Amino acid sequence: MEKIKIAVLGATGYTALELLKLLRRHPAADVVAVTSRENTSPIAEVHPSLTGQYSICCENLKPADLQARGVQVVFSCLPHTATAAVAPELLELGMKVIDFGADYRLNDAAVFNKWYNVVHPDPDRLPSTPYGLPELFRAQIKNSALVANPGCYPTSAILPLAPLLKGGYIAEDDIIIDSKSGVSGAGRKPSLKNLYPECNEAISAYAVGTHRHTPEIEEVLTTASGKAAKIIFTPHLTPMDRGILTTTYSKRLNDASQEDLLAYLRKFYAGEPFVQVVDALPSTKDVIHTNRCHLTVRVVGSRVMTISAIDNLIKGAAGAAVQNFNVICGFDETTALL
Amino acid sequence: MEKIKIAVLGATGYTALELLKLLRRHPAADVVAVTSRENTSPIAEVHPSLTGQYSICCENLKPADLQARGVQVVFSCLPHTATAAVAPELLELGMKVIDFGADYRLNDAAVFNKWYNVVHPDPDRLPSTPYGLPELFRAQIKNSALVANPGCYPTSAILPLAPLLKGGYIAEDDIIIDSKSGVSGAGRKPSLKNLYPECNEAISAYAVGTHRHTPEIEEVLTTASGKAAKIIFTPHLTPMDRGILTTTYSKRLNDASQEDLLAYLRKFYAGEPFVQVVDALPSTKDVIHTNRCHLTVRVVGSRVMTISAIDNLIKGAAGAAVQNFNVICGFDETTALL
Amino acid sequence: MEKIKIAVLGATGYTALELLKLLRRHPAADVVAVTSRENTSPIAEVHPSLTGQYSICCENLKPADLQARGVQVVFSCLPHTATAAVAPELLELGMKVIDFGADYRLNDAAVFNKWYNVVHPDPDRLPSTPYGLPELFRAQIKNSALVANPGCYPTSAILPLAPLLKGGYIAEDDIIIDSKSGVSGAGRKPSLKNLYPECNEAISAYAVGTHRHTPEIEEVLTTASGKAAKIIFTPHLTPMDRGILTTTYSKRLNDASQEDLLAYLRKFYAGEPFVQVVDALPSTKDVIHTNRCHLTVRVVGSRVMTISAIDNLIKGAAGAAVQNFNVICGFDETTALL
Amino acid sequence: MEKIKIAVLGATGYTALELLKLLRRHPAADVVAVTSRENTSPIAEVHPSLTGQYSICCENLKPADLQARGVQVVFSCLPHTATAAVAPELLELGMKVIDFGADYRLNDAAVFNKWYNVVHPDPDRLPSTPYGLPELFRAQIKNSALVANPGCYPTSAILPLAPLLKGGYIAEDDIIIDSKSGVSGAGRKPSLKNLYPECNEAISAYAVGTHRHTPEIEEVLTTASGKAAKIIFTPHLTPMDRGILTTTYSKRLNDASQEDLLAYLRKFYAGEPFVQVVDALPSTKDVIHTNRCHLTVRVVGSRVMTISAIDNLIKGAAGAAVQNFNVICGFDETTALL
Repeated sequence: MEKIKIAVLGATGYTALELLKLLRRHPAADVVAVTSRENTSPIAEVHPSLTGQYSICCENLKPADLQARGVQVVFSCLPHTATAAVAPELLELGMKVIDFGADYRLNDAAVFNKWYNVVHPDPDRLPSTPYGLPELFRAQIKNSALVANPGCYPTSAILPLAPLLKGGYIAEDDIIIDSKSGVSGAGRKPSLKNLYPECNEAISAYAVGTHRHTPEIEEVLTTASGKAAKIIFTPHLTPMDRGILTTTYSKRLNDASQEDLLAYLRKFYAGEPFVQVVDALPSTKDVIHTNRCHLTVRVVGSRVMTISAIDNLIKGAAGAAVQNFNVICGFDETTALL
Repeated sequence: MEKIKIAVLGATGYTALELLKLLRRHPAADVVAVTSRENTSPIAEVHPSLTGQYSICCENLKPADLQARGVQVVFSCLPHTATAAVAPELLELGMKVIDFGADYRLNDAAVFNKWYNVVHPDPDRLPSTPYGLPELFRAQIKNSALVANPGCYPTSAILPLAPLLKGGYIAEDDIIIDSKSGVSGAGRKPSLKNLYPECNEAISAYAVGTHRHTPEIEEVLTTASGKAAKIIFTPHLTPMDRGILTTTYSKRLNDASQEDLLAYLRKFYAGEPFVQVVDALPSTKDVIHTNRCHLTVRVVGSRVMTISAIDNLIKGAAGAAVQNFNVICGFDETTALL
Repeated sequence: MEKIKIAVLGATGYTALELLKLLRRHPAADVVAVTSRENTSPIAEVHPSLTGQYSICCENLKPADLQARGVQVVFSCLPHTATAAVAPELLELGMKVIDFGADYRLNDAAVFNKWYNVVHPDPDRLPSTPYGLPELFRAQIKNSALVANPGCYPTSAILPLAPLLKGGYIAEDDIIIDSKSGVSGAGRKPSLKNLYPECNEAISAYAVGTHRHTPEIEEVLTTASGKAAKIIFTPHLTPMDRGILTTTYSKRLNDASQEDLLAYLRKFYAGEPFVQVVDALPSTKDVIHTNRCHLTVRVVGSRVMTISAIDNLIKGAAGAAVQNFNVICGFDETTALL
Repeated sequence: MEKIKIAVLGATGYTALELLKLLRRHPAADVVAVTSRENTSPIAEVHPSLTGQYSICCENLKPADLQARGVQVVFSCLPHTATAAVAPELLELGMKVIDFGADYRLNDAAVFNKWYNVVHPDPDRLPSTPYGLPELFRAQIKNSALVANPGCYPTSAILPLAPLLKGGYIAEDDIIIDSKSGVSGAGRKPSLKNLYPECNEAISAYAVGTHRHTPEIEEVLTTASGKAAKIIFTPHLTPMDRGILTTTYSKRLNDASQEDLLAYLRKFYAGEPFVQVVDALPSTKDVIHTNRCHLTVRVVGSRVMTISAIDNLIKGAAGAAVQNFNVICGFDETTALL
C-alpha cells in the first residue's frame, strides 16, 4: 500500500490523540507533521500514551510548510473558524482536508454566523462541501477534496433519525433529542466545569435550547430526508470519559410496529460496517473505543423512540475522520477501524 | 425530646443503610430492631460504614416480636408485596408504618396488580393511604398511621411537574420524562447488570416504556393537579453511585415566559425546606447526600422543559422517610435532615 | 447553646465547602463572614450545593473587619504562608484561629522553609502551636488560641503508626507509607492534571520522594512516639472524589502477634469517637462523608502493615477542624460530626 | 498470511472478550470455536460489543471436538485446574495451548498445591512449561507447544524488578510490592464485592499477605535473576475498569544513581516493542487498551522504587496471549497489538 503523507493540525487535544492512535494502525498513514500554535514538545510528551509510537514534535506550521513536506492529506482539529481560515490555501496547494470542526458542516453561512456568533471566513465553500457521514453521503465524499467531519452529537442523532424521517415513520416537526455525553467531549482545556471533582458523581444538562449542534442536526436531517426537521436538543454531561447515548422521541406517523421499524432500519443499514441495528437497548460500553454505532427503535404509545450509542471521540470524531480518509483515498473503509 | 422506638425491616440494602445513618443523627430515634430474613450478623458488619454506630444484629422478627420490644414506628425496606403482607398486623398492633416500597403508593389495586404482576395482599388500604411527599400531601400524611414513601424517579418528576400542571402551564397528555439514575437505585443484590465493569464508563436506557414508576407518576400527577396525566418515562443507568437527574418535555399551553414559570414555582415552593427552585441548571452533585431537590424550568420553542435533581437514596428514599417520620411524629420537619 | 461568630477565610475551595456544610449542622455555629480575595459572589453560587443554606457573599476582609463583625473563631483555608501572614493580627485581636494549611504544623521553621521553599512569616509561634489531632494532642489543643489542623495524608498515616511506634512494636527508621487519595485533594483550581478525562480510569503516583507531607509525618510521629521516625512517603492520585487509603510497611520489632497488635490499638483508641480499629480491611467507602478513621494492622513476615482509611476532606480537613473547634470551645467533641 | 484455526475456552469472561477483540484485528486468526460449559448463546450476545464481529455461538466442546474442527491453537481462559485437566489431551492431539490461568506458571507442583489448595492434575509438565513473558523468556516460548500466560500483577512487578535484581542494584530479600488494580481483574462473576456501588468511590486492600500471585512473582524473579527473591505483595481494588499500577520498594545495594538505573533499564529493554522505560511517573491511563508497559525507577533514600503501569486485561492477559501466539507461530510479535 502506498504511503500517504499526513499532517494533523491542532494536535494537542483529545480528538487528535485518538486520530494519531488510529493512524498508527493504518498501513498507508505516514504522519509527517503535527501542529500547535504554542506547543513545541514531542507529541509523545503532550500525549504520554503515544510514547514509543511517534517521535515527531509539535510545530507551528503554515500551509506552505506542509506543502514543502509533501503533505497530501490534512486532518484539522483546530477550533471553529481556524480551519476555514487556512483551508482555502491548503486546497489551493493541492492538499485534501478533513475538518473535525464545524466550519464546513452547515450549508448556510448565515446560520453559521448566527449560532457561532462570528463571520464565516470562507462562506462560498459551504454549499458544496459534503457532510462526512459516509453512511448517508458516501458518493459526495468520495469526490471531494474537503470533508466536513460531523459533530459527535449529530452523528448519534442523525444515524437513527434520518432513515425514519425518510421512510415517513415519524413526524419531522416535533423531535426531542436527549443526549448524554462523556466529559472528553468538553475538550482538554482546563476549566472549573470539567475538573474531576466537579464532573465525577454528577450528571447535569447544559446549553439547554442553545447548543450549536442544533442547527447542524436540523439541516442534515432535512437534507437526508427531504423533510424540514425541527428539533429540541438537550445535551447532558455524564461522569464517564467517552461515549454518547442519545434517546429521541418523535411522533409516530403510521401503524408500523416496532418490529417493522427494526426491520426497516436493518435493511437501511445492511452492509454498513459501522452501524449495527440491535434488538437490545444499546450501552455506550459496547461501542467505546470502536468506530461503531449501535442503535435501536421502540414504539411507546404515540411516540417512536430511538436509542443510539457511539464513542464521541471515534465514530463521533477521529474514527469518522479515518473512515472519510479511507473513502477519499480509495482504501477499504474499515482499514485501521476494526 | 422523647425517644421513639424504631424498627427497620429489610435492613441489608442501600436505602436501609442511608436510613440508619440519618436516624443516628436524629435526637428522638431509638433503633431497637433491624430485620432480615436470612442475615443474623451485626448490622455494622452488613454495612461496615456503621462500625461503632450501631451494635445491634439483624434478626428475623415478626410483628408480635416488634410489639414486645415496644416498637412505635416501623420503616419497611422490604420488597414489594412483603410490606403489604405484614402492614395490617403492624397497624393493628398500634405501630405506625412508613413503607419504602410500592405497595401503598397507588390508589387502584388493579393498576398495581397489572404493573407488578401479582395480587395485592391488602387492597382496601390503597385509596386511603397518603403518598409520602409532604410538599404536596402534608396534611394527609400528618394524620395517617401508614405512609407510602414515594419512588425515587417519581419524586424527581412530580416535584417540578405537578405545580406546572396545576397552574395550567403545560399539557397533561404528552409529557416526556427522561431520567438518569445512579446505580445504587438498582439495589444491593449482585447481578451481571450492576457489576462495576458493566456499569462503569457506560450509560444505557432500561425498561423503556415498561418501568413500574410510570403508573405511579401518572396517578400522583393526576391527583395533585386534577388533570389526567399521560407520560412516557425512560430511565437510564448512569455511572455514578447515587443521584437522579430528570429532564422533562411538555407542551406549553400559554405564553407565560421562563421567568414567569420560575417565579410561579418559587412561590409554589416558598417555605419548603427541601425544594429549591434554582436559576442555573441543576446537577446531581449539588444535592447528593442531602434531602434536597434542585429544580428549574426552561421554555424552548413550543415546549416547557423542567430539570430536577435529587439523591435517589435520600430525598428519593431514606430522607423522605425521615421527613415523613418527622411529620407524623410532630417533629420539626428538618430534624436530622440538614 | 450560645452562638459563636465564625469567619471562614478562603471559602471558595473544597475544604471550605465541607466546613460550611458541617457548620450548618452545628447548633453553636454562626457563620458571619466568608472571604475570598477575588470572588464577591454569594457563597451559594460559588458552591451551588449550599443553595438555600447560606445567604452571605464572599468578601475581601481584613482582620479588623472581622473583629468589627464580632468574629470569635476564624477557620483559615488560605494557601500556605497566607495564614501565617494574618494569624498574628487575628490572635492579637482576640480571635481564635484554626488553620487548615501547613503554616503551623511543623515545629521547626528551617524545615518549613526548606520544604516549602519560602521564608516563614511567623516562625516564633511554631514550637508552641499544637498539632490539631485531638486523639494525640487533645490537652494542648484545648488551651490554645491557634491550632494547626493536620494534613490529610499525615492524619491517615499518623493514627495507625504513632501508637505502634510508641508501643515499640515497629522500627522507626524504615517506614514505607503508600497512600492513595481521591482527586479533591488536589484542590479546586483548574489544571490539566485534575481534569476529569485525565484522572478518570487512571491511577498514578506523584511527588515521589518529595511530597511536603513527608517532614510533617516524620515530625509528628517523632513527637508522639519519642522515636526519630524516618519514612518514605508515596502519594497516588486515585479516580474518586474523596477518601485516602494508606498502606504502611514497617519492620516488626518483637513477636507480638497480629491479634496482640489489634488489641493494643483497640485499647489505645478506646473511647475515641472517630477512630475505629477494625478486623476487616478498611475501605474508603466506609468512611467518606464522615469524620471517622477506620484502621487495622497485619503481620506479614518480618513486617507490620497498617491499613487506614479516612475522608480527606472531613477527618483530613474540615471535620478535624470542627473537632478542634469543639475542643477549644468546650463543646461535645462529636457535635455536628455524627 | 495463512489462517490459523483457533479455539477460545471459557469465552464468557472479560479476558476472553479482550482476546476476541484483538484476534479480530489479527490477519491470521480464524476463530472457529468458543466454549462455555453452560452458555450456548451467540458470543455477540454474551459480549454485546462483539455485535457484527463474530457470528459463532458458545458450545460445550471436548478436545476431540476441537480436533475435528481443525483447531491448531487453543487459548484457555478456564479457571485454575480446569486447563490442566484438558491440556494433556489437547497437546496429545497436536494442538498448541496458551493458558491464561495459573496452572502452568509455577515450576513446583507442591507450591501450587499449597497456594491453590488443590492437587495439580498435571504436575509433570510444570518444570518444562515456559512462563509467557517474551521479554524475559522468548527463546523458551518459541519452541513450546504449551505456554503459561503470566498473571496480571506479576507482569507489572516482574518487568521492572527482574532487571534490577539481575543487575545487582537491589536486594532480593526485602521487596515490597504495592499494586493497584481496576475491578475487571476480579472477573465477571457477580458478587457483592464487585458491585458498582461497592467499588465506586472506594479503594481497599485485599488478600493482604495471602494473594496467589505472591509465589508466582517470587519464583519468576528468582528464575530471571538467579537471586532467591522474597516479597511482600499487597493488591488494592481501585475504582476503574482496568489498569494496574505497581509501586515497589527495594533496598538499594550500591550507589548507582537514578539516572544510571534509568539508563540500565532502557538498555535492558531496548528493542522491546511493548516495554517503555519512561522518565515521568507512569499512569495507567497511558497504557490501558494497549499491550504496553510503562515503567520507571526512582532512588529515594536507601530505597530503589519502581513504578509500572499495564492494562491488566491486555498486557496482563489477552495481549500477552496474542504476543505469545505471535511468538510460537512465527508472526511479527506486534501483529494485532499496535
